[in-house]
Amino acid sequence: MASAGSKEGSGDGIAELARRRGFLWLAFEIYGGAAGFYDYGPLGALLKRRVEEAWRNFYLKEGFYEIETTNIAPREIFEASGHLESFTDRAVVCKHCKSFFRVSEGVDVREKCPECGGELENAGEFNLMFQTRIGVPKGGRDEGAQKKSEGYLRPETAQGIFLNFQRLLRFNRDKLPFGVIQIGKAYRNEISPRKSLIRLREFTMAEAEVFVDPGEKSNHPRFEEIKDRKLWFVPSEGEEGEKSIEEAVRSGIIANEYLGYHIAKVEEFLGRIGIPQDKLRFRQHRQDEMAHYARDCWDAEFFSERYGWMEIVGVADRGDYDLSSHASHSNTDMGVHGKLQVREGEAEKTKAKIIPHVIEPSYGIDRIIYALLESSLYEEQVGKEKRKVLRFKNEIAPIIAAVFPLLNRDELKSKAKEVFQQLRDASIFVEYDDSGSIGRRYRRQDEIGTPYCITIDYETLEDDTVTIRERDTMEQVRVPIAEIKEALFAQYHMD
Amino acid sequence: MASAGSKEGSGDGIAELARRRGFLWLAFEIYGGAAGFYDYGPLGALLKRRVEEAWRNFYLKEGFYEIETTNIAPREIFEASGHLESFTDRAVVCKHCKSFFRVSEGVDVREKCPECGGELENAGEFNLMFQTRIGVPKGGRDEGAQKKSEGYLRPETAQGIFLNFQRLLRFNRDKLPFGVIQIGKAYRNEISPRKSLIRLREFTMAEAEVFVDPGEKSNHPRFEEIKDRKLWFVPSEGEEGEKSIEEAVRSGIIANEYLGYHIAKVEEFLGRIGIPQDKLRFRQHRQDEMAHYARDCWDAEFFSERYGWMEIVGVADRGDYDLSSHASHSNTDMGVHGKLQVREGEAEKTKAKIIPHVIEPSYGIDRIIYALLESSLYEEQVGKEKRKVLRFKNEIAPIIAAVFPLLNRDELKSKAKEVFQQLRDASIFVEYDDSGSIGRRYRRQDEIGTPYCITIDYETLEDDTVTIRERDTMEQVRVPIAEIKEALFAQYHMD
Repeated sequence: MASAGSKEGSGDGIAELARRRGFLWLAFEIYGGAAGFYDYGPLGALLKRRVEEAWRNFYLKEGFYEIETTNIAPREIFEASGHLESFTDRAVVCKHCKSFFRVSEGVDVREKCPECGGELENAGEFNLMFQTRIGVPKGGRDEGAQKKSEGYLRPETAQGIFLNFQRLLRFNRDKLPFGVIQIGKAYRNEISPRKSLIRLREFTMAEAEVFVDPGEKSNHPRFEEIKDRKLWFVPSEGEEGEKSIEEAVRSGIIANEYLGYHIAKVEEFLGRIGIPQDKLRFRQHRQDEMAHYARDCWDAEFFSERYGWMEIVGVADRGDYDLSSHASHSNTDMGVHGKLQVREGEAEKTKAKIIPHVIEPSYGIDRIIYALLESSLYEEQVGKEKRKVLRFKNEIAPIIAAVFPLLNRDELKSKAKEVFQQLRDASIFVEYDDSGSIGRRYRRQDEIGTPYCITIDYETLEDDTVTIRERDTMEQVRVPIAEIKEALFAQYHMD
Repeated sequence: MASAGSKEGSGDGIAELARRRGFLWLAFEIYGGAAGFYDYGPLGALLKRRVEEAWRNFYLKEGFYEIETTNIAPREIFEASGHLESFTDRAVVCKHCKSFFRVSEGVDVREKCPECGGELENAGEFNLMFQTRIGVPKGGRDEGAQKKSEGYLRPETAQGIFLNFQRLLRFNRDKLPFGVIQIGKAYRNEISPRKSLIRLREFTMAEAEVFVDPGEKSNHPRFEEIKDRKLWFVPSEGEEGEKSIEEAVRSGIIANEYLGYHIAKVEEFLGRIGIPQDKLRFRQHRQDEMAHYARDCWDAEFFSERYGWMEIVGVADRGDYDLSSHASHSNTDMGVHGKLQVREGEAEKTKAKIIPHVIEPSYGIDRIIYALLESSLYEEQVGKEKRKVLRFKNEIAPIIAAVFPLLNRDELKSKAKEVFQQLRDASIFVEYDDSGSIGRRYRRQDEIGTPYCITIDYETLEDDTVTIRERDTMEQVRVPIAEIKEALFAQYHMD
């Protein structure tokens, strides 16, 4: 047995391992790179895909629909959504070196330039959307035509869902509530993204939009299932601390059951993929940091040893902001016939038309990947050696099993390749490796978080059994080849 | 048994069904839409995901690595790749209404304006990339700074793979050949995209880049496996006709075994997801239509009843164009130590450094989705009624099975919901439906291509058996509930 191991989460260790082992690569590196852009290497892409699949299945099983909408949208969409006016950051510029900086806690016009020490001055508000132009503008230099051809890269995937609300409602046979998800790229033209791995200009969001009759927000049909779960809450006013979801809703810290239910689901999902609960808290936005569309917002924050508390998911109550705004800008009816209501003091029943409210859990997939890497990395003393190990949960490990011949001999290699092919045909993500000592091959797999290593030795050739070595305990068991698949599938939650 | 049914592939039938049943929706429709942009509704997103998963698994099993790179890239990438100079279309503009048109077979300066009948004049070359700006340009109006901050949306995913070539080579332990795939959005700012469903400005590509020692191109290690397959070839010179891959390579129609192998793999994949072989041909590009980076290119073309022959996959031999170009622009060494070669007339062995060549199968996922919809749609006479049915292969059907209570009674509904939940927990994409007559519910599932309908009736309550009705034959079998999962998994190729 290995020692429990020490956390190796801080700082450069992760960035170095992520680069060396093919998880995350600075984009355009041969041209010197560009701030805010990262690529996923082969292992990073596998890890990301598994996280996305887990997320998608989590919400599809809750009954959500998935759609896929465009990355580019015309100007009028963002006039309606409020992003053209309100999705901005304040910037300062250095009088000396002309560098721009986002105004934040650290940088202000009263400070000196972080690059050259020069004097800073206010540079105004900058919109964070990437602008482009769709087609050839008709009418040449005419200002109206220019505006009409303006397009933007979406700053969130949500708008594509709101724009299709009527079709989605019809798809759900005109009934509320229902939920819709989307996974895709979003873009923010950050002024000076220095926290490179976590402040990206291009990133992946996974968003869920729940449409609900505002009269039903305080009554989630499955609230019972989650009400006793305890989370750490940091409300915008009052004391932080651990509370059950039910206490938080009843005491008014969380505004309604729908918001409470979806906060609980966020915590459940993050736990399932391996974010440690003791590094997680739910912090409510102050009025002055809330997005322009939100009435209330809670961030799921992960405690990073490198960056401190950082947002990885936001759960917002967007009210009827988006649907009402698109209704008036596009002159479309977004109303829905609500539940049959008996109005107090009236004898008659009325079926009022309402604009649904939206509860939105919005996940930052790249930051979740970062949090998984940081919180999974351990360094352990094994005998005289140190080993680095990524303790990924089986549900998300990029490689499920590696297959080795014990020695570099043809008869072992061909048998190992046969076992490897058999597992690959069954869609288990497996790797074959015959280079270097067996110890070195184990270390390599530990570093990329592979839960199982399967070794073919001379006993295999006699009785068709192999050893399976488990990553965390480093214990080995002997298993017949015919049972590997089942053993791995059982361990591995393959949905 | 149903009659064989007639093809219902032409024209508006598909567009109407795709819109009504939630496959494809015109984007920004409440604002009047925008040419060249479509969204995937809930069923379209499921279908697309299944096609992408099938594609990914197909190439991963061939041993390819997958990566994910950025949609935005700085100007210098496309200076090097040649897209800034060469990725252009010629346009004409109407003197009267100022509409722009792409110069093609149909539109030319000698014609009249298709919109108003006015006179056309040449408007020059237009670059098809969407341009944007990354960050706040330093130095204000300085032209160099403006250029430096220019960014473009990628017109193909391939460049992201080429830029990471050295890291990928290292990941593959410095050995050739190897292959890398990427699925993602790409963008082309088409001048006037009127063929809306198939000429998109934003679309999904699935690309594979195979890096090979140029000295090995004529010798693919698995050529034997595919050499006897017969395909319909339309070479740029000479007669079209059916030939085996081996004949095509030996007679010089296809330049080398690598290109031949990957053309065969394209045909294999398209067949697997259900593109009929008799609607498929491989057409070689003429010299004057070849992309600037290609030495040779074959398009897999699908015969559409609406659009005629249309490209759905391109297989290009890009030679060393991209790696050599990035090597010189970024001043990076892209050379690889090739195989040990014995030079003729020399006694010594030399290990020459070579620049790998690239063979690239590049799939247009949206057009493949369109081709699947068109070629799967049949209209059949069943008794007095007509039914529309999408004969999707099980491998890609968006919904695997629908569960119905025979009648709208509580005891049947609760049993049906139980069976539904059991299947959903096993990750089988299932739908529950209790609205309307059973016949109407069958038709609804036929129209979205669901292979199996499971009906719960009073016999179910007695002996725990259900009927499973098969989409194409409309035959029903009675199966114990305990065996549904296995029956569906067996039918369903779930990898």
